[in-house]
Amino acid sequence: MKRMLLTISYDGTAYHGWQVQPNGITVQQTLQDALEKLLGERPAVTGCSRTDAGVHARKFACHIDCKDNFPESAFLKGLNSLLPNDIAVIDCREVEPDFHARYNALGKKYVYSMYTGALNPFDSRYMLHLESLPDIDLMNKFCKGIVGTHDFAGFSCSKRTVEDTVRTITECSVKKDGNKIYFEIKGNGFLYNMVRILAGTALAVGQKRLKPDCYNDVFKDNDRSKAGDTLPAFALILEEVYY
Amino acid sequence: MKRMLLTISYDGTAYHGWQVQPNGITVQQTLQDALEKLLGERPAVTGCSRTDAGVHARKFACHIDCKDNFPESAFLKGLNSLLPNDIAVIDCREVEPDFHARYNALGKKYVYSMYTGALNPFDSRYMLHLESLPDIDLMNKFCKGIVGTHDFAGFSCSKRTVEDTVRTITECSVKKDGNKIYFEIKGNGFLYNMVRILAGTALAVGQKRLKPDCYNDVFKDNDRSKAGDTLPAFALILEEVYY
Repeated sequence: MKRMLLTISYDGTAYHGWQVQPNGITVQQTLQDALEKLLGERPAVTGCSRTDAGVHARKFACHIDCKDNFPESAFLKGLNSLLPNDIAVIDCREVEPDFHARYNALGKKYVYSMYTGALNPFDSRYMLHLESLPDIDLMNKFCKGIVGTHDFAGFSCSKRTVEDTVRTITECSVKKDGNKIYFEIKGNGFLYNMVRILAGTALAVGQKRLKPDCYNDVFKDNDRSKAGDTLPAFALILEEVYY
Repeated sequence: MKRMLLTISYDGTAYHGWQVQPNGITVQQTLQDALEKLLGERPAVTGCSRTDAGVHARKFACHIDCKDNFPESAFLKGLNSLLPNDIAVIDCREVEPDFHARYNALGKKYVYSMYTGALNPFDSRYMLHLESLPDIDLMNKFCKGIVGTHDFAGFSCSKRTVEDTVRTITECSVKKDGNKIYFEIKGNGFLYNMVRILAGTALAVGQKRLKPDCYNDVFKDNDRSKAGDTLPAFALILEEVYY
């Protein structure tokens, strides 16, 4: 047996997130189906995290254990030929037998994308359309304030299942490129809906519906009602996982 | 009554082409549904052309007749709020009562997109993935040869319904931008599947499966079998209609 780390890229529009669940097709089970066809047995696939329904990933990571000793290029080509067009395996490599895609992950980068100007269905698939340009400087003031180690309970959905809600954000900023706006965030971990709520709060700040230092009120009492909306999933991309 | 020219943009993945038909949802009927909700009556919508199932459009044109005297911006905003995310109306303006979206069209531009390198589900939605880079110079030799006025019957699907198969191509070329390849073509009109067959023939030339002057054999006897494959619809975009 050898342990393999797979890097996969997917358009999450058609999926109920990463993790297998009873009420819809997930990326994990679609990947398992393809692996079963390729390997003749259904391996366990362990992902670096869950992703919400509709969220995309540029470089999601997961590990599997398998017997075969196929060359990497044949494995990639075979697996991709069995996957639908909206999922691609872009890398695979052997790792130590005790490597774990979730526990070994040091951090992740997410990007929430928005755009202004004329509606465009090609952009609307992956970006939130805004009627007008928010104030990027105000948004960045908010972003600066949440960098660091904090209890993010107030910036997460109450349906979360974890007990420890303290996370460290190492980088957070908003970048503007023409009519496109990117909320980028890196951290050691993220709670349920946390990136979508942080992006929604940054947007509310940029639209002057909340103050740039509103994070103080949210942190103080873990008060979800003081943060912004949970923005829709379709404009969120998991960019990268760091090991 | 006034006649309005609408410019619409759509991701055609979910649609059975533009034109209303019994076996699937089309862009035309989806637009009519939204117009009916907005205007209180169902207007006829006349498109600049049909598009095949799965083909996209950056700037498709169609005309409608309607009574209302709403300001253009309110009409656009109202209509877009009633349309799904994969269709957007990007412009509307009043035209002469005898203007016709199809008969007045002077020409159209299509782009067929391909890419090489690592598979990427975001590109794979709109671009054909190629295992290796075709010879761009050879492709452009073929493109030069089809510019002009020719009988394109051999470059169209036999299911076509028109009798006159002579068309004029004014520009045709292949451009490379990093790992992306664009087959671009402008002409006064296109037969059923014609762009997809021309792109498929250009690709076969670039992959040295056909000679750059193979168009001579196709033109000579209108021989479809001497041309390349009909490439899949998902990588074809109607870029613009000229009036």
